Amino acid sequence: MSQKVVLGFSGGLDTTFCVKYLSEDKGYEVHSVIVNTGGFTDDELKKIEAHAYALGVKSHKTVNAVKGYYDRIVRYLIYGNVLKNNTYPLSVSAERLSQALHIAEHVKEIGADAVAHGSTGAGNDQVRFDMVFHIMIPGVEIITPIRDLKLSREAEIEYLKEKGVAMNFDKAVYSINKGLWGTSVGGKETLSSKGMLPEEAWPTQVTKSNPEEVKLHFEKGELTAINDRKFDHPAEAIQHLQSIAGPFGIGRDIHVGDTIIGIKGRVGFEAAAPMVILKAHHALEKHVLTKWQLNWKDQLAQFYGNWMHEGQILDPVMRDIEAFLERSQQNVTGDVYVQLLPYRFQVTGIESAFDLMSSKFGKYGEMNSGWSGEDVRGFSKIFGNQTAIWNAVNKGE
Amino acid sequence: MSQKVVLGFSGGLDTTFCVKYLSEDKGYEVHSVIVNTGGFTDDELKKIEAHAYALGVKSHKTVNAVKGYYDRIVRYLIYGNVLKNNTYPLSVSAERLSQALHIAEHVKEIGADAVAHGSTGAGNDQVRFDMVFHIMIPGVEIITPIRDLKLSREAEIEYLKEKGVAMNFDKAVYSINKGLWGTSVGGKETLSSKGMLPEEAWPTQVTKSNPEEVKLHFEKGELTAINDRKFDHPAEAIQHLQSIAGPFGIGRDIHVGDTIIGIKGRVGFEAAAPMVILKAHHALEKHVLTKWQLNWKDQLAQFYGNWMHEGQILDPVMRDIEAFLERSQQNVTGDVYVQLLPYRFQVTGIESAFDLMSSKFGKYGEMNSGWSGEDVRGFSKIFGNQTAIWNAVNKGE
Amino acid sequence: MSQKVVLGFSGGLDTTFCVKYLSEDKGYEVHSVIVNTGGFTDDELKKIEAHAYALGVKSHKTVNAVKGYYDRIVRYLIYGNVLKNNTYPLSVSAERLSQALHIAEHVKEIGADAVAHGSTGAGNDQVRFDMVFHIMIPGVEIITPIRDLKLSREAEIEYLKEKGVAMNFDKAVYSINKGLWGTSVGGKETLSSKGMLPEEAWPTQVTKSNPEEVKLHFEKGELTAINDRKFDHPAEAIQHLQSIAGPFGIGRDIHVGDTIIGIKGRVGFEAAAPMVILKAHHALEKHVLTKWQLNWKDQLAQFYGNWMHEGQILDPVMRDIEAFLERSQQNVTGDVYVQLLPYRFQVTGIESAFDLMSSKFGKYGEMNSGWSGEDVRGFSKIFGNQTAIWNAVNKGE
Amino acid sequence: MSQKVVLGFSGGLDTTFCVKYLSEDKGYEVHSVIVNTGGFTDDELKKIEAHAYALGVKSHKTVNAVKGYYDRIVRYLIYGNVLKNNTYPLSVSAERLSQALHIAEHVKEIGADAVAHGSTGAGNDQVRFDMVFHIMIPGVEIITPIRDLKLSREAEIEYLKEKGVAMNFDKAVYSINKGLWGTSVGGKETLSSKGMLPEEAWPTQVTKSNPEEVKLHFEKGELTAINDRKFDHPAEAIQHLQSIAGPFGIGRDIHVGDTIIGIKGRVGFEAAAPMVILKAHHALEKHVLTKWQLNWKDQLAQFYGNWMHEGQILDPVMRDIEAFLERSQQNVTGDVYVQLLPYRFQVTGIESAFDLMSSKFGKYGEMNSGWSGEDVRGFSKIFGNQTAIWNAVNKGE
Repeated sequence: MSQKVVLGFSGGLDTTFCVKYLSEDKGYEVHSVIVNTGGFTDDELKKIEAHAYALGVKSHKTVNAVKGYYDRIVRYLIYGNVLKNNTYPLSVSAERLSQALHIAEHVKEIGADAVAHGSTGAGNDQVRFDMVFHIMIPGVEIITPIRDLKLSREAEIEYLKEKGVAMNFDKAVYSINKGLWGTSVGGKETLSSKGMLPEEAWPTQVTKSNPEEVKLHFEKGELTAINDRKFDHPAEAIQHLQSIAGPFGIGRDIHVGDTIIGIKGRVGFEAAAPMVILKAHHALEKHVLTKWQLNWKDQLAQFYGNWMHEGQILDPVMRDIEAFLERSQQNVTGDVYVQLLPYRFQVTGIESAFDLMSSKFGKYGEMNSGWSGEDVRGFSKIFGNQTAIWNAVNKGE
Repeated sequence: MSQKVVLGFSGGLDTTFCVKYLSEDKGYEVHSVIVNTGGFTDDELKKIEAHAYALGVKSHKTVNAVKGYYDRIVRYLIYGNVLKNNTYPLSVSAERLSQALHIAEHVKEIGADAVAHGSTGAGNDQVRFDMVFHIMIPGVEIITPIRDLKLSREAEIEYLKEKGVAMNFDKAVYSINKGLWGTSVGGKETLSSKGMLPEEAWPTQVTKSNPEEVKLHFEKGELTAINDRKFDHPAEAIQHLQSIAGPFGIGRDIHVGDTIIGIKGRVGFEAAAPMVILKAHHALEKHVLTKWQLNWKDQLAQFYGNWMHEGQILDPVMRDIEAFLERSQQNVTGDVYVQLLPYRFQVTGIESAFDLMSSKFGKYGEMNSGWSGEDVRGFSKIFGNQTAIWNAVNKGE
Repeated sequence: MSQKVVLGFSGGLDTTFCVKYLSEDKGYEVHSVIVNTGGFTDDELKKIEAHAYALGVKSHKTVNAVKGYYDRIVRYLIYGNVLKNNTYPLSVSAERLSQALHIAEHVKEIGADAVAHGSTGAGNDQVRFDMVFHIMIPGVEIITPIRDLKLSREAEIEYLKEKGVAMNFDKAVYSINKGLWGTSVGGKETLSSKGMLPEEAWPTQVTKSNPEEVKLHFEKGELTAINDRKFDHPAEAIQHLQSIAGPFGIGRDIHVGDTIIGIKGRVGFEAAAPMVILKAHHALEKHVLTKWQLNWKDQLAQFYGNWMHEGQILDPVMRDIEAFLERSQQNVTGDVYVQLLPYRFQVTGIESAFDLMSSKFGKYGEMNSGWSGEDVRGFSKIFGNQTAIWNAVNKGE
Repeated sequence: MSQKVVLGFSGGLDTTFCVKYLSEDKGYEVHSVIVNTGGFTDDELKKIEAHAYALGVKSHKTVNAVKGYYDRIVRYLIYGNVLKNNTYPLSVSAERLSQALHIAEHVKEIGADAVAHGSTGAGNDQVRFDMVFHIMIPGVEIITPIRDLKLSREAEIEYLKEKGVAMNFDKAVYSINKGLWGTSVGGKETLSSKGMLPEEAWPTQVTKSNPEEVKLHFEKGELTAINDRKFDHPAEAIQHLQSIAGPFGIGRDIHVGDTIIGIKGRVGFEAAAPMVILKAHHALEKHVLTKWQLNWKDQLAQFYGNWMHEGQILDPVMRDIEAFLERSQQNVTGDVYVQLLPYRFQVTGIESAFDLMSSKFGKYGEMNSGWSGEDVRGFSKIFGNQTAIWNAVNKGE
């Protein structure tokens, strides 16, 4: 009897190759699985399923992971205002982990002997898949045909044509990865240190030119309503905001970052809803959290994002940080007003019952209430006391 | 003989009041001083001097502090990519400290008995002035007429009119503070938590509409040339860049932050050159620094900015952090390409001899060189080893 | 009708003075309150109550705060292994806050107009009391006779003798403050930078000389049993351990630290049970937590201790950190073996179902299992890849 | 012609095996090198050299690295008061890197084709050697016979006996590693989570019982004199202090830590001079540094120690941290008084011209000078202002 392998399958060239290679060259019974984290339509998923069966897989599973992906990962990225290197919402990093976790579950469910992924040897994804599999399904063999064979694109096509596979073999200029939390766009200009993606390379084209106002409502840090329309689940709110803000061309940028394997990588991305949400959420937090809440959230969230980027989502320290982040959101409730314009947006204000900025407590730069000039005079003296002593001790240096 | 007081003097209503109050009501010999950190033209400075003498000061001193301000403070804000709450370049915070340091020096030079500043009781500046004076000139009395008397604007005007002072008493809608590192704009909309400044409120109006490309050259973290034009001093380069980028309306935003005295404050600012420089500098760093250099720079710089904001520039820990930041800039040399557009800009790439992103060392996501798939397979196993052990130990939970 | 004042009362010279001064000179109706955080016996508390009524207080309240003090504060100091400046268990800092919170509650309960404490103007306690009162009972006047009058000890005694107060007016050489989490000893040698407290100055004298073994059982980070004897509440376990370890003279040291008001302070302390518990708890954690759990716990706990020391226990960031710390203790369950000897102790080992150190997963320095030499070879290559690239780029420097 | 290999050689069983294996089985021309970081006497080094030549090496080099080891590494461990997991002075970690750096230099000097080390597959050293070699001498083959062959001790002995090698083949109960910064002792009790090393296992036996006082003089953070005797180099001062403090049995402990490869490791160590120096240095710092200098030094030093432990000494971030640490030592000059007793020591005080604790600036807990009670009253109000506002906003929760 053949051994079973679960294969993460996207329907692209590499994973198509893997089905044939694993089943026909290696003799495995192939069970393909696709995990949708928001990048595929139902129609696309059906086509991918048909393609899988046409290639001869024993079974194919489609996991609709969007809400679970939000609940388990994206939620905390929002709580933490996480932008890697102050730029990138970590869309691909987060998705890949969600996918790896579901694939590992599938391996356990069907009692597979092996698991396969189609990553190359020069990116982050290989490490994310490998690590989650080592941790969750230790002992299960991990097979990585693309990384190990280092075949050229042309060789793969030739191999598939020989096997009689019919599919579109045209190479796209840009490699695109779409999900709930953003779409990455890599290729050509991003392969060197200089050069911006051209207008036509962006998956969402700019079709709106008139400014629009949106009101985002957050409940304990989660986006629950847009322009007074409530959503059953925050993932739906995110998708709705994306449909509003996307056509403005908002949230496009290029990220340069450190890969897990030590090289620098550069990639374009568009993430209209994520960028608007992160900035709106942060604006609300600036009004309702104390100075040190903001400070520690930043430090923990920066680590959280980096450690997730490096595939370490299962380290229990991540649960501890999530406990901190969740507790910090208790007062992060209110409305945030955002103006959307072509290629940019601005947060224009907030309203919250927990707003710490109130003329009741003094008007910044204008008039104090609740304390006197003498109080501040005393404060300044004590606040600078240690450095004053230091200066006195060091005089004459 | 009268006691001498040194008064920080801007020529505005509050400090004009202070001159009369200190000299005529309190009997001090008033020595006014203005410290230019980039916000005044020569002409303005001459008028302020004339105004001071007309009010009856014994002496007036103009300190041109722009280069020193850059060398002592702004330089490190660039090294650290410092944006308070990820938004505000700390222009006013930094200037005020530069001014306080120069005023304290002047007190020592002329052997004054007292020092006076015109801050109100509800802002950050009072603490900054108080603290620097307590530390640098301990024992010298600090006089703060505006904070102590809590006079209304009208009362001050009436007082001055009685004293026969002739000046423009019209109140501007917005309070504006201009310097090398940005211009703050406060008033009306910024006094509450909601509302954006209107177009006409911004000091620099948008007069450019066609995209422009600029090439910024950094040497060990400092901006030394723009479009191949070299500058004698980075402060000049900043001012030149401001003249190019300002008319695009770039770098406008609203900052919401924690004041030193515990209330939240909201203020608009425009900072075209600072924002372009900070983002360009950071982009270059992402290419030439290692992951942990970027990480530690962020943490130290966030503290550095906050601690400076709170007036603590003389704490010796600031010198220790500066030593770190300066050392970190050793390789931050190269060109950064920036596209300027109305209300926004984008960094389009960099060129540097120290770029760590090079196809010599592997192409991100495409092909590895210098290591094998087996190497990464081993890496992933070891990198996830502790969490795998943790998972094994916790199974059955 | 007289105004009511609640006075924090210890029965010592300063607060005895406060009763007379507030009632007879200032005409207040004085309500004294003592909060026992573990330093007083029932007998002592009764004597203090009698003393208060003899001085003429309207009411006197004794709050037994030991368990609440543990639940609200000490517990987190253990979770975080908190030692200020790596030395001091923060006993006085923590107690004072527990006391301030209870006093503020009492003010609210009896609807007092004012609150008074007997702190001097040169310590930390004044800030802790002031701040908790400002926050919890804003608007209630804070009266601080000792700080404001700056009376000498002799003047206070003379005043009390005139009022006919009979009590022991002898000055102790050392000022001692005892509580659940340690006993501080200040005076003479600790007033300058050099000099150790003499043997006879320590409140607990050394009466044990033969080594003893104790087994401490922790459940999710809390000490629940000692030598297999279970306790109803961890505070009781702490007190029991103190009775065992105290007579060894364990946990004596001198702490030099930064006061909230900027000067340096030096104080002796003995804390046998706290030091044994902290080291035992930390030893257990080293076995059951991952590397980054240990790392982040340290950073957060260091801040937590410092911020508590500075009286900021009511900042909501403290609740967020507590959420992190509590989550981190999920696996901190097991036995820790400690050997007690005169003046010192050593943790000799642990046993835990969550121990990550197990020969199943490889023997440190001896033999690998679960991974191969090739895996580590690959790991090392990738782990050093970025610095290798950096070095290649920088060659020729 | 044979290829040249440089072999790190200690003269023990494993590296003796390597000489024979590399030369006779693999046909290499073996060049052995031993790097002394303080653990070997001249006599021992001569014997090791003779042993190497007897085994047939082509050349043998002895590098006396003690001073360079101090200058490049140990110095910063002292500046940072580095104790891994608050326990272990990182002696082996630091030494191994010093050795790896010298071996790599030797490879370059003699133009070797390969480099070999005798590490097993279950410890940290393999990663340290591998990584330094990958970075400094990329392309040079790294040979690790012990890790790759996974031979038992018995198999190695049999092999060597067959080759006619005469040496002492007895297995010591404990594996001992001695150097300037401490001696590690592993085996038997340390192989499981419970059990203390017995008295006779410690390399330095306790021969002193009467207390001794020592005065340590630090100049900008470096130990330059002991009891008024000046040393030419701090490494000599360390060795002298070791000769004084070692016979007290001071500085013995067991370290439990995270290895680079993810397992937990446990090892005993004795480090009399390092522990006394670190605690004395830290005590001095508590008197001369400001609060935030102490705080940031701790955070940076904890990372520095961990990152060095993981072999990352060549990451440029380490140079940046060293710049911070070095700058922070400017005022760390003065005398520290230490009392040595059997198995323990205590720092009894310090004297320094930079001491910030001085009655000139107020006496802790007793009398304020330089500020008033009113100043602190104002300070407390402002210092707690934000939490007071937060509390007011949240009332009714």
